Amino acid sequence: MKYPGNIKKTYKQVVNYKNRGMELEDIINEACNYYLEMDLAIIYKKPTPIGVVDVDYKNGAVINKAYFKEPSTLDYNGIYKGKYVEFDAKECHSKTSFPLSNIHEHQIKHIERIIRHKGFAFLIISMNSEYFIFKGEDLLDFINTNTRKSIPYHIILEKGYKLNYKYHIGLDYLKGIEDIYFKGVVK
Amino acid sequence: MKYPGNIKKTYKQVVNYKNRGMELEDIINEACNYYLEMDLAIIYKKPTPIGVVDVDYKNGAVINKAYFKEPSTLDYNGIYKGKYVEFDAKECHSKTSFPLSNIHEHQIKHIERIIRHKGFAFLIISMNSEYFIFKGEDLLDFINTNTRKSIPYHIILEKGYKLNYKYHIGLDYLKGIEDIYFKGVVK
Repeated sequence: MKYPGNIKKTYKQVVNYKNRGMELEDIINEACNYYLEMDLAIIYKKPTPIGVVDVDYKNGAVINKAYFKEPSTLDYNGIYKGKYVEFDAKECHSKTSFPLSNIHEHQIKHIERIIRHKGFAFLIISMNSEYFIFKGEDLLDFINTNTRKSIPYHIILEKGYKLNYKYHIGLDYLKGIEDIYFKGVVK
Repeated sequence: MKYPGNIKKTYKQVVNYKNRGMELEDIINEACNYYLEMDLAIIYKKPTPIGVVDVDYKNGAVINKAYFKEPSTLDYNGIYKGKYVEFDAKECHSKTSFPLSNIHEHQIKHIERIIRHKGFAFLIISMNSEYFIFKGEDLLDFINTNTRKSIPYHIILEKGYKLNYKYHIGLDYLKGIEDIYFKGVVK
């Protein structure tokens, strides 16, 4: 489907669920479940926004027609140590740069807002078989000081916080949140 | 539709949108928009969780079959003054008591969790043409110390914080959050 701004978004999880490999969302969801079970954080993926057009109430509220809506916020949000956390998962297939067309304009405004209200907002980017937390502040800074339409890989490496996949946990992004926002680790 | 536990939930907004009166969700949504515009808080209604069964990608990703899922969290969440906020809107049609069957067991566990992680969790209850914030703490306290399956109206009046509908704002629940959680006003 095409969103305004020609952003193409496919919903692979709906159709190819069984045959796909370990995708970014899976290993983030795995970590969300782990943190929930261990009572470390409460972070959920928001339901995909769907516009319902037609419902058959006679057969137990089956939806017969609906469509995917454009997201204006980020995919995941929740609470860690009393703080508000919100982030989006972005898989980048280019090896050289992360296209900013991956992020809707509404989402950028939303990131600005969250930071202004003292929440933690960031992207988790998968690129070149590595995973990074890229802070909302660094994203906004790049957008405001560059005319480029994509973030070069060396900037992701320089500013990003590298995340690791851990067996039984998933993509351990909470360690990143702890290090970046609580310990102030300059990666 | 029937959820487990015989909870009946209708999705009036889908079918009767045009003909209904001013319902609780409308005046909460109105306030959410107002707070967003005035940059006072960032609180959104989460999308209704929907399980997608069949998508027609040939015609621009039209969903041909889907169903409503049972919510395990609360309907609204977001950030106010750096704090995590989550709540649910509940319309109560009984004049004498608020049935606890209105709240799923998963939601009660979720409320416990949020409070433990230092977020603000509550219900906004509409009852007898009045609106109240009923704190998660008071809800859990009632459940843990009573065998009753509903909260009598006098307890809602006693423990609840009364909210007002304001012209151009909507149901001004942010004043309630401010008074209860920041100013420690005993209602």
